[in-house]
Amino acid sequence: MIDRYSLKEMSQIWSPESRFHFMLKVEQAVAKAQGDLGIIPKPAAQTIYSKARFSYNNILKREQASRHDVTAFVSETASHLGKHGAYFHYGLTSSDVLDTALSLQIKESKKLLDKSFKSLKKTLKQLIVKHKKTLCAGRTHGIQAEPTTFGFKILGHLAEFSRAEHSFNQAVSICSIAKISGAVGTYSSLPPQIEKKVCQKLSLKPETIATQIVPRDRIARLVFSLSLIGSFIERLAVELRHLQRTEVAEVTEAFYKGQTGSSAMPHKKNPISAENLTGLARLLRSYVSPALENISLWHERDISHSSVERVILPDSFILTHYALTRLENLLKTLQVNEKEMKQNLDSSKGLVFSSQVLNALVRKSLPRQKAYPLVQKISQNLKENEDLKSALQKNTEIKKHLTSKEIENIFSGQSNDLLKHLEETLKKF
Amino acid sequence: MIDRYSLKEMSQIWSPESRFHFMLKVEQAVAKAQGDLGIIPKPAAQTIYSKARFSYNNILKREQASRHDVTAFVSETASHLGKHGAYFHYGLTSSDVLDTALSLQIKESKKLLDKSFKSLKKTLKQLIVKHKKTLCAGRTHGIQAEPTTFGFKILGHLAEFSRAEHSFNQAVSICSIAKISGAVGTYSSLPPQIEKKVCQKLSLKPETIATQIVPRDRIARLVFSLSLIGSFIERLAVELRHLQRTEVAEVTEAFYKGQTGSSAMPHKKNPISAENLTGLARLLRSYVSPALENISLWHERDISHSSVERVILPDSFILTHYALTRLENLLKTLQVNEKEMKQNLDSSKGLVFSSQVLNALVRKSLPRQKAYPLVQKISQNLKENEDLKSALQKNTEIKKHLTSKEIENIFSGQSNDLLKHLEETLKKF
Amino acid sequence: MIDRYSLKEMSQIWSPESRFHFMLKVEQAVAKAQGDLGIIPKPAAQTIYSKARFSYNNILKREQASRHDVTAFVSETASHLGKHGAYFHYGLTSSDVLDTALSLQIKESKKLLDKSFKSLKKTLKQLIVKHKKTLCAGRTHGIQAEPTTFGFKILGHLAEFSRAEHSFNQAVSICSIAKISGAVGTYSSLPPQIEKKVCQKLSLKPETIATQIVPRDRIARLVFSLSLIGSFIERLAVELRHLQRTEVAEVTEAFYKGQTGSSAMPHKKNPISAENLTGLARLLRSYVSPALENISLWHERDISHSSVERVILPDSFILTHYALTRLENLLKTLQVNEKEMKQNLDSSKGLVFSSQVLNALVRKSLPRQKAYPLVQKISQNLKENEDLKSALQKNTEIKKHLTSKEIENIFSGQSNDLLKHLEETLKKF
Amino acid sequence: MIDRYSLKEMSQIWSPESRFHFMLKVEQAVAKAQGDLGIIPKPAAQTIYSKARFSYNNILKREQASRHDVTAFVSETASHLGKHGAYFHYGLTSSDVLDTALSLQIKESKKLLDKSFKSLKKTLKQLIVKHKKTLCAGRTHGIQAEPTTFGFKILGHLAEFSRAEHSFNQAVSICSIAKISGAVGTYSSLPPQIEKKVCQKLSLKPETIATQIVPRDRIARLVFSLSLIGSFIERLAVELRHLQRTEVAEVTEAFYKGQTGSSAMPHKKNPISAENLTGLARLLRSYVSPALENISLWHERDISHSSVERVILPDSFILTHYALTRLENLLKTLQVNEKEMKQNLDSSKGLVFSSQVLNALVRKSLPRQKAYPLVQKISQNLKENEDLKSALQKNTEIKKHLTSKEIENIFSGQSNDLLKHLEETLKKF
Repeated sequence: MIDRYSLKEMSQIWSPESRFHFMLKVEQAVAKAQGDLGIIPKPAAQTIYSKARFSYNNILKREQASRHDVTAFVSETASHLGKHGAYFHYGLTSSDVLDTALSLQIKESKKLLDKSFKSLKKTLKQLIVKHKKTLCAGRTHGIQAEPTTFGFKILGHLAEFSRAEHSFNQAVSICSIAKISGAVGTYSSLPPQIEKKVCQKLSLKPETIATQIVPRDRIARLVFSLSLIGSFIERLAVELRHLQRTEVAEVTEAFYKGQTGSSAMPHKKNPISAENLTGLARLLRSYVSPALENISLWHERDISHSSVERVILPDSFILTHYALTRLENLLKTLQVNEKEMKQNLDSSKGLVFSSQVLNALVRKSLPRQKAYPLVQKISQNLKENEDLKSALQKNTEIKKHLTSKEIENIFSGQSNDLLKHLEETLKKF
Repeated sequence: MIDRYSLKEMSQIWSPESRFHFMLKVEQAVAKAQGDLGIIPKPAAQTIYSKARFSYNNILKREQASRHDVTAFVSETASHLGKHGAYFHYGLTSSDVLDTALSLQIKESKKLLDKSFKSLKKTLKQLIVKHKKTLCAGRTHGIQAEPTTFGFKILGHLAEFSRAEHSFNQAVSICSIAKISGAVGTYSSLPPQIEKKVCQKLSLKPETIATQIVPRDRIARLVFSLSLIGSFIERLAVELRHLQRTEVAEVTEAFYKGQTGSSAMPHKKNPISAENLTGLARLLRSYVSPALENISLWHERDISHSSVERVILPDSFILTHYALTRLENLLKTLQVNEKEMKQNLDSSKGLVFSSQVLNALVRKSLPRQKAYPLVQKISQNLKENEDLKSALQKNTEIKKHLTSKEIENIFSGQSNDLLKHLEETLKKF
Repeated sequence: MIDRYSLKEMSQIWSPESRFHFMLKVEQAVAKAQGDLGIIPKPAAQTIYSKARFSYNNILKREQASRHDVTAFVSETASHLGKHGAYFHYGLTSSDVLDTALSLQIKESKKLLDKSFKSLKKTLKQLIVKHKKTLCAGRTHGIQAEPTTFGFKILGHLAEFSRAEHSFNQAVSICSIAKISGAVGTYSSLPPQIEKKVCQKLSLKPETIATQIVPRDRIARLVFSLSLIGSFIERLAVELRHLQRTEVAEVTEAFYKGQTGSSAMPHKKNPISAENLTGLARLLRSYVSPALENISLWHERDISHSSVERVILPDSFILTHYALTRLENLLKTLQVNEKEMKQNLDSSKGLVFSSQVLNALVRKSLPRQKAYPLVQKISQNLKENEDLKSALQKNTEIKKHLTSKEIENIFSGQSNDLLKHLEETLKKF
Repeated sequence: MIDRYSLKEMSQIWSPESRFHFMLKVEQAVAKAQGDLGIIPKPAAQTIYSKARFSYNNILKREQASRHDVTAFVSETASHLGKHGAYFHYGLTSSDVLDTALSLQIKESKKLLDKSFKSLKKTLKQLIVKHKKTLCAGRTHGIQAEPTTFGFKILGHLAEFSRAEHSFNQAVSICSIAKISGAVGTYSSLPPQIEKKVCQKLSLKPETIATQIVPRDRIARLVFSLSLIGSFIERLAVELRHLQRTEVAEVTEAFYKGQTGSSAMPHKKNPISAENLTGLARLLRSYVSPALENISLWHERDISHSSVERVILPDSFILTHYALTRLENLLKTLQVNEKEMKQNLDSSKGLVFSSQVLNALVRKSLPRQKAYPLVQKISQNLKENEDLKSALQKNTEIKKHLTSKEIENIFSGQSNDLLKHLEETLKKF
């Protein structure tokens, strides 16, 4: 039921039919290597390499009888190769083909996600540059803490997505493995040279020590890296949902002509994209546990990982691709309400500068142990319509340590260090 | 990518189109109640109740503009109702319809699982009756412990599936809820009487206190009950995989004409169904966490649960249905190798009776603290080709407490209590 | 590292020493039954029943040698019983004692949680009664939707906690099991009558069909029921965190004399209790997955569940007890800011009544398809300082269908149905 | 309740008291940097750097009042510093200290795990070298597939633990972060230079862009890397459990003098260490989900991650340390039963060579489509007491393609490639 969250290109990579095409590439690379090393006759190798093909429907029919998809694929493809068909799949066990093909599928999927990342990062950078000076409240515990800028907030998310991309790239590299070492990984039918040649051909690395399969920690790390992307998407989506709530109103998701927010309440405009993304992150997280459980297969392998991966691998790639694309679109059309940002900040009555007041007092040698309760008392007992600055200006204890001018300076705005740090950091991405 | 594990009927219940049909049933029940209570004109109610229909394709088109599936559904259906269409969806919020329809979908799915359970339990009972006296090793820690029978083993699984069914039924009952209380659950547009009448019509119970939606703990409990079924399936599947390993060979999965076990090794017959089921259990377990995360929605609801449920609800029902069906087929065609069961038990050299020896000695007033190390020493130091019985018969210390006849009796077989207990318990199911 | 979140009584129930006391109760009940049925000598039974005791330190010492805690416990206790010690643990396997004792531990823990629930529900009821008419915004998607009352919100949470309590009680009942059926559940050493008598003595039910142990679905359901409590706590905690954010300010957690909110910012008062509870819910959720994985033990049992349960059972009970207690304290000292609730609601400019306007127009026979876009357009295009009511009063299209009086009525307040429904529902708890 | 699985050194690193010592190191490094840059007076910096200390009990007392552990720690430590105490914690927010201290704790824990890895790898290598030629069955689906050696099996696990160590080291590097950028990460109180100097002092890297805290993806990756170690431990533990089952008996866990395997059955020797490790892996897996949920904190941070990390960070480090140590001990004392390995392999009747027969036939130009069913038929229809080799020697169809000598050669043993590959690969570790 993943269809709703699927973009065509990614679905295609993970379609059942497409899987057989990746498998064919592996068989062809093996046949070529076998021909080169004289393990099978050159003409057979040449024919398999250049002419092997199959009918997907025939595979499905053959699978009815063999109850084994790989043997169905092998017999179907061999049937198109005449006498050379005898050498198709020579010396291989199914998992040699399946796991190496899976590596190719993963690498192909990476191409799509690479584009998504590139495009998302560009959009984030534009937001950062545009709003690097757009003052807004920084909030901890949901309570206004100190001022920051909207660009600085987004820069934090850019840094996260860069880490996500990096960890995903590492995971794909960890999964870029060919395994052509036979039934229990001992090269009983084919020498390690075949595996090496296949690796060169397909730009993969050989498995260090395989069982019948590529060990499943590799896949677990890939799935985790996708869940990490999901959790970063979630953090930004949650931020945007908070900023959109009625009382905050600092940003607004695009609302299109003809769109309706609620079937009951005509006035509603809701942050539905950000909420949808929040849910998708939960799904992405949920795939990690079965991927980890898949590691402990019995002896040289059981097949219990297969039914799991047939669901979680396509779904986690498809959801990640969809989510990155939807997030980018949300950001591209996001309305940033600078006025509301300023209003909210102003409504704090200057409290967001309380730490600066504390620091100023300590610098004037008032011990922290005295300065803290003093500022706390003033801050937490402001009168209606009074702000922190004016309360400080009136306070006799404060006036012993700070001049009116010094107090004024404290409340003058954001730190220059912020802007400088933002600009320097942005260059890194 | 769940398609591979899907049986048609269950997929149909959870298809996107089918969802609108369940929604229509809710709208019709509401219209009828509104007509009866004079909230909308009787003729409008009558027309909606008996004639409302929609084109699924038109809904999809309308959704392009409204970006809201329920308003698309409402406008499409209303367009077929002439002037009465004005009263379609009157006073409702989308979630009134969506959540009540979801309850109907769940109840419909239950009908299919009911059949699966009935059929599976029948198959289990047949196995139990047939093998109630088929002696085999009971094993703890993978080590032979005491004798049991294959029927008794299976009876334990029957008891589990009965609990699974019971907990699933409870969960469906917990989810059989209608919610027609409007935008924030306050009956602001329609009085509680409408909800009550809808409940009668659709055999549901009203939500105690709703937000905009039915609180999501209900769904979490449903998903958990499905994961529990999965874990029971897994326990039996793992048992059958153990019993099929080369060195144990006590049962064999059916192997069909034309089937192949391995593309490399022609001799292989593998427990692929049991392994497949083991993997499906991992998937079913993975849905619990997002279902629990869905409970904490913001205020009177955010929509983040929706993207989660669109995936996990169809998938968990579809997988459960598939797994129960596949398990039943596996059991129906399972070959039970009584000879191997006996051989394995015999190969224990009588060690599986060591606890009986211990008990016999204690009954003869040898303190447990002396009896235990005595039996342990004899058991763990049997000579090649010696069994426990003969070792006891020869042991002078043992002979002080037990006669040869008494020793003989200990090794005579399984307990009668087992058989009696099995037969009495079986009657309960 | 759970100590920080532990209340003494619950920790005590789950201490390693306490576990042996529960085990002793089981051994005593078994001895009594064995004496009554003539399986062991009456005087032995009597002595065990009335005089058995142990030194915890001695058990620890004996465990060094036996590497088996139960045999250490058995030999230590027997050593205090003179010649009757020979009959201590007669015919039992360790799991008979361990699992039956675990049931007693769970029942004992329930007593503490019962008190927590009772007390929490009382506190919730007081809040509901006090604020049943305290108007505030109902929010969906974080956007103001329709008015509700604070009492009504809390009533929803009371309904949830009632369901949580009910599901927990069911789970404890499912876990109130005695299992005295020996090494592989076949009653090979002791007849089922012993188990029945032990059940009567300890107020437990016999396991239907055991392996060496009580099947672990029972425990999984218990752990799930605790995670459900956690998720309900989380939903309320998240609500209270939202209501405390600077821009909403509708409630305030108690802030104590001498307390500091931040080491840097003296002005800060943070919702730290609600945030702490949010984190605890994540922990409680995380215990479900290992509890489910524990179900599929090998054959008649392996011991892999044990290291899991030694951590998750104490921790999940301790965290639940702590969290319920902390939540109650938070609620008892919560400051509800009625003024801010009203201000926030007023700031919606009457938009929260848009659905009532829609319904009124439909009742006046304006087709929904026309009424909806009309109200949407007016709602989403209010001028600065204009509210929905006055915009409607001025709109010529609206005036064709609704009189000024009718418009006035729509905006007059919350529904009476809300209050009636609240009061009726409250009676149920 | 983690105590049972705790080794003293690791517990100590994660004790509540120890945490304050790591925090003190951070405060001292900050003070030194502030002195160097003239932000606080040199003498104050010097005194803090060389003399700061605290009483843990006093912190606990002060926390009663402040309800904030960091302010308690700050005031307690400042109280020992005379007038210089005024400058202790100057310009810092609590999280500056907490998160940087956490990085130090993690690095300290790594030292212990480094030792565990080193020692475990040494033990694995010894097993590999000793058993590189010890023939045993390779098994897929639990069914004998092709021969391998016990050393080759263990080499696969060594490769996994090397990957685990590498991924853990990467994760620790990702977590080796100092964050001294103030309340919302904007360097409002202290310039970035302080952070840089602290990094040099403590061998950490500065956070790219912080909120109030170090973003939590770093911790999630750390926790995942520990869960990965757990899953590798589990795969090896499960292998050892399989090999220990009665019918396989290829390895045996050490059984100590005075040890008891079962309180009921004196004959039992159980794989309890391997089972215990299997359970611990479930626990380690369970920490990933809350760690991922911790990423999406609100705005510039809420504190909900804190209650989670106080439990899962100590527990996951403690469990990992315990499990690695226990595994190593298990391996060091493991008894490898070469005789049983050979017997089990022989009992396959030569079927483990069926793929070699298939390959030989294809090499002799019998098309795979004919060769496969031919070998399958012979393999799956062996008579009692007949083995595959003799069945082939008798088969007229086979004899058309393979000479008696060629058949003999097929069954002569394991591949040389295995040994060569093992030796080459072993050099890498």
